Amino acid sequence: MEKLSFESDYTQGAHEEILRALAGNNRKPLSGYGTDPYCASAREKIRRQCGCPDADVFFLVGGTQTNQTVIDSLLRQYEGIIAADTGHVSVHEAGAIEYTGHKVLTLPHREGKLTADGLRNYLQGFFSDENHEHMVFPGMVYISHPTEYGTLYTKEELSALSGVCREYALPLYMDGARLGYGLMSFDTDVRLSDISELCDVFYIGGTKVGALFGEAVVFPKGNAPAHFMTIMKQHGALLAKGWLLGIQFDCLFADDLYFRISRHAIEMAELLKKGFSEKGYEFFLDSPTNQQFLVLENKKLEELKMRVGFEFWEKKDEAHTVVRFATSWATTEEQVQRLLDLL
Amino acid sequence: MEKLSFESDYTQGAHEEILRALAGNNRKPLSGYGTDPYCASAREKIRRQCGCPDADVFFLVGGTQTNQTVIDSLLRQYEGIIAADTGHVSVHEAGAIEYTGHKVLTLPHREGKLTADGLRNYLQGFFSDENHEHMVFPGMVYISHPTEYGTLYTKEELSALSGVCREYALPLYMDGARLGYGLMSFDTDVRLSDISELCDVFYIGGTKVGALFGEAVVFPKGNAPAHFMTIMKQHGALLAKGWLLGIQFDCLFADDLYFRISRHAIEMAELLKKGFSEKGYEFFLDSPTNQQFLVLENKKLEELKMRVGFEFWEKKDEAHTVVRFATSWATTEEQVQRLLDLL
Amino acid sequence: MEKLSFESDYTQGAHEEILRALAGNNRKPLSGYGTDPYCASAREKIRRQCGCPDADVFFLVGGTQTNQTVIDSLLRQYEGIIAADTGHVSVHEAGAIEYTGHKVLTLPHREGKLTADGLRNYLQGFFSDENHEHMVFPGMVYISHPTEYGTLYTKEELSALSGVCREYALPLYMDGARLGYGLMSFDTDVRLSDISELCDVFYIGGTKVGALFGEAVVFPKGNAPAHFMTIMKQHGALLAKGWLLGIQFDCLFADDLYFRISRHAIEMAELLKKGFSEKGYEFFLDSPTNQQFLVLENKKLEELKMRVGFEFWEKKDEAHTVVRFATSWATTEEQVQRLLDLL
Amino acid sequence: MEKLSFESDYTQGAHEEILRALAGNNRKPLSGYGTDPYCASAREKIRRQCGCPDADVFFLVGGTQTNQTVIDSLLRQYEGIIAADTGHVSVHEAGAIEYTGHKVLTLPHREGKLTADGLRNYLQGFFSDENHEHMVFPGMVYISHPTEYGTLYTKEELSALSGVCREYALPLYMDGARLGYGLMSFDTDVRLSDISELCDVFYIGGTKVGALFGEAVVFPKGNAPAHFMTIMKQHGALLAKGWLLGIQFDCLFADDLYFRISRHAIEMAELLKKGFSEKGYEFFLDSPTNQQFLVLENKKLEELKMRVGFEFWEKKDEAHTVVRFATSWATTEEQVQRLLDLL
Repeated sequence: MEKLSFESDYTQGAHEEILRALAGNNRKPLSGYGTDPYCASAREKIRRQCGCPDADVFFLVGGTQTNQTVIDSLLRQYEGIIAADTGHVSVHEAGAIEYTGHKVLTLPHREGKLTADGLRNYLQGFFSDENHEHMVFPGMVYISHPTEYGTLYTKEELSALSGVCREYALPLYMDGARLGYGLMSFDTDVRLSDISELCDVFYIGGTKVGALFGEAVVFPKGNAPAHFMTIMKQHGALLAKGWLLGIQFDCLFADDLYFRISRHAIEMAELLKKGFSEKGYEFFLDSPTNQQFLVLENKKLEELKMRVGFEFWEKKDEAHTVVRFATSWATTEEQVQRLLDLL
Repeated sequence: MEKLSFESDYTQGAHEEILRALAGNNRKPLSGYGTDPYCASAREKIRRQCGCPDADVFFLVGGTQTNQTVIDSLLRQYEGIIAADTGHVSVHEAGAIEYTGHKVLTLPHREGKLTADGLRNYLQGFFSDENHEHMVFPGMVYISHPTEYGTLYTKEELSALSGVCREYALPLYMDGARLGYGLMSFDTDVRLSDISELCDVFYIGGTKVGALFGEAVVFPKGNAPAHFMTIMKQHGALLAKGWLLGIQFDCLFADDLYFRISRHAIEMAELLKKGFSEKGYEFFLDSPTNQQFLVLENKKLEELKMRVGFEFWEKKDEAHTVVRFATSWATTEEQVQRLLDLL
Repeated sequence: MEKLSFESDYTQGAHEEILRALAGNNRKPLSGYGTDPYCASAREKIRRQCGCPDADVFFLVGGTQTNQTVIDSLLRQYEGIIAADTGHVSVHEAGAIEYTGHKVLTLPHREGKLTADGLRNYLQGFFSDENHEHMVFPGMVYISHPTEYGTLYTKEELSALSGVCREYALPLYMDGARLGYGLMSFDTDVRLSDISELCDVFYIGGTKVGALFGEAVVFPKGNAPAHFMTIMKQHGALLAKGWLLGIQFDCLFADDLYFRISRHAIEMAELLKKGFSEKGYEFFLDSPTNQQFLVLENKKLEELKMRVGFEFWEKKDEAHTVVRFATSWATTEEQVQRLLDLL
Repeated sequence: MEKLSFESDYTQGAHEEILRALAGNNRKPLSGYGTDPYCASAREKIRRQCGCPDADVFFLVGGTQTNQTVIDSLLRQYEGIIAADTGHVSVHEAGAIEYTGHKVLTLPHREGKLTADGLRNYLQGFFSDENHEHMVFPGMVYISHPTEYGTLYTKEELSALSGVCREYALPLYMDGARLGYGLMSFDTDVRLSDISELCDVFYIGGTKVGALFGEAVVFPKGNAPAHFMTIMKQHGALLAKGWLLGIQFDCLFADDLYFRISRHAIEMAELLKKGFSEKGYEFFLDSPTNQQFLVLENKKLEELKMRVGFEFWEKKDEAHTVVRFATSWATTEEQVQRLLDLL
């Protein structure tokens, strides 16, 4: 019996509709660097979904690359970016932000999230510090939605954060590596149009949500910095065959494919959650999206590990470990059932 | 009648064998970041082709990204990279090298090539300049093969350059964006094993030679800098689904696919060349690879432009323009014939 | 009556012997960039004081510049520097370290100090994290001595830290902006020769210890990175008239001037401490060097502020504030007495 | 007899009035980082001399540091700075500009100068190149006045350059390391007020013109980028005891000291020039400032070298060498006479 795979949401290729679209256009000569008609069409569909007819939309290949390029493009050189201390840019991007000269200014997280109060306190403290001109200025705010812990901002939380950002004229940037799973959660009141209204820039993740690879950066008010394409090139982030990204996003945003496959992953996660719960497993926290965090006894962990792939998250105590199970657009009901049977 | 496309060698997708391999493995869970078995297998095949059992091989997505990451990984911070003034890193990468803190030190080119004499003179001049400690130290040498003009180093030229580099302990780096077309030229004595012996690092281009995207960096003596994978991550150059690159290169280096499709492009280029020549067109220079540079009368240029895509290269005089026609793995004999009929 | 000045140890010029030496050599033509005989002589004296005949010694202008240049010269690009979260490089250098591409990896401080245990735990955790290749590698350790809180490492603490660093092959760097005051404390067992033995690089601060400006970087085992002078130039840290630094350090290390004036500042601080203590003031922590931290009632603070300069440190509670009084080479006994009379 | 020194204009300390001012204020407590009254007074005097009541003025320590900080503060990350290929930033600053991520875009010089026509041609070519979005955008123009060859822009030349810059919205930056010698040349029609009008930022050099060290950056229209002080700090370019710079410039701009000592150097250079000419020496080019370039027979050169310091510039042919003699604020008539006697 083949080992089950719940390690992450990027262990498989792409939704078959996407593969078919790529194959169908394979021999068609197309102009490079995002200037082709598929990119244009994908941009238009994304604008429509966001309710932002003037949005600037760019396609990049991966998440770290996108974070690095977007953040560097918006910060002045003496500015840093505020993030939760658990934020991906702070921990797991090998210093890609610092590499471009900018400090990541960390604040304590609450289940992976920044709070409006925490942000305001920090900003008040910074500007009232008489030595602040010797310190890194906050220049932007980074959040992920879903967060690295699978949690989601409520609309109220997001509005409050956005309010503080606007008060201090700081762009609010949302890392949407798993945005589809956030939007399709059973337990969210945040829609794509809310994000477009409350954030200054965000990206719609493809790599983890059904594309082979690719992330769509959206500047909802047409507020991309001048020559963003050149900035992408300078960061090694401009794909020569840009249409590969255009075709994928054009396909994801036709017939709601992006939302349908995201919803499917959420349904699979909910099944899993229900099963875990019924079998009496302890959750590390309550995640409403496709990443589920369990506390396992180490003995159980060792036993399970032979039959199913999951991710070690952190040690809880001598006898227990926190682990992560992730569903994705590709997870099947049968796989979920097999996993539950193993528990 | 559909417009002909000879603009470049990256206007189409991938060889169909590659697409099939990608589709065939689409639902198979694979571990990320280049740790999967396809990457391992592709590495092994590349090592065999290069005659370098100890080579370190890494897969990246695109050319500028590869140049930026490799060069930055090998230079110390006070060093720059020597390149021909026509070199891609000097002109068309939006300052990606400087962005990582390193100057591109340019020398005059000869048909896109550096000469061993030119290099030696520069190095002698540098180290005999009593102010050289106030200048950027040369730390590496960049060449492209084929060059931006389609030309190739002879084995003698490459050996001479390599000799100067070794005398001064400078790594020699070959940008092989179009390496296949160079290796399969009718007019070359440089084999992959020569490159592996004479260069310290090079990349085997996939994007322009039959892959959807991807470049394989080879450190032939196992001489990759420590933690090159982390350096890739830091530059936003580590593809999450690394197996997409592994599958492609595994496929390109099975059954000599890489060489067969490169040879095909060369044959198409030779047909074109013969046709141009027979029709009395003037060549801007003699290119033995898939890029052919012609001098066109402006009137002819305007007329052709409606029926066929090609690249403007530079103005020659008031009445003439240099243009580039490129063949690729995807060019058909029928397309070449149709182009020749138009001339 | 003139306002008293205890804000910091860099509010006045230089010891008069230094001014005289500068004036005495003013019209003498000297070669630039640290190649003059005064720099050579100062280097030799410093080597002797450190007990390191092979030390490499370089003179820079200021502290942030020195930290930036030294740290950047020793880290590989994928590495960061470990520091206490209160470390100057982490908080008050406007991101100068990140600007050169390196993350400051912070650990919790204990009275401004790193602990060997804390460091070891962090390093063990880092290397046992299976995702550590996606994170910033620790590449160096930064400590200040005295710390930003005026505290000192004991020889045992310093040895333990150095031991962990060597176990992990991490250079240990000591920021000695106020080193003289540390060495001359009544309460230290750490000598300059211990520092030379236990650290891999450190600087002897001049700006805050009697020089007009200037810091002497010491690589005690002749272990400066290649072309450190060029690295200085590249960072804008190579003073054209390098002899201005040479003359100052030559003077500071003739007849123990550096130690005598440091001792004087310590004696003044001890007087202050005794006075504060006798008058029943609360100390924020026990500092054995020239910076003294008191807890003042806000009412007292407002009153004092009119007559004496001191530094606001942090709010303690609604009614109390932590403030800093600093003595220096230039503080007189009469000034200390006047301050005590005001309390 | 003591060896004569004509190597450069920074081989001696400072004008004695400056030394006296520094000594006179040595024990006076002053606030740091340029917030003291001497800096304020010096700023006001400079504004008056420039005829720019709203100018922002900052004091830095040295030339490379100043160029790096100013250029980096004004460029966006995808922009480079245009300079003559002989420009100091291009050749002799160890890559300090590239280190901050920006390419130096070089144009051919004419006696060290950029020409308005050359600049316009380059800019027209750049923006009409259909691939320019893949290239480094020109973002600023660097000139030196006097140039590295001692030459000067005429007012007409400077106006023409400034016109092209404004047409393309590029800030024009003048490196005035030797500005005093330029302003006091017998052969110039460019005044400080012209520079203030035609340039967007420039610096008034102190290090080479009578100060111990220091350069005054002027943004004549109050057009300094936000938080320039923090940018200075981030570059390690903010002197803690900023008043050392303030006192020096306050002194240089009291009673026209800066202009008087510059004029003196010019007079000495003219004496030298006249002497060289009368003795039949060949000039490499006609310099109207304090740097004089001669063509010497190698035999004569070797002979002279024992008695007088001068700078090797470049080899002319097998038998001849170009050398530089520099006068300064500190050169005496007797020294000039002794040099002429040696020829």
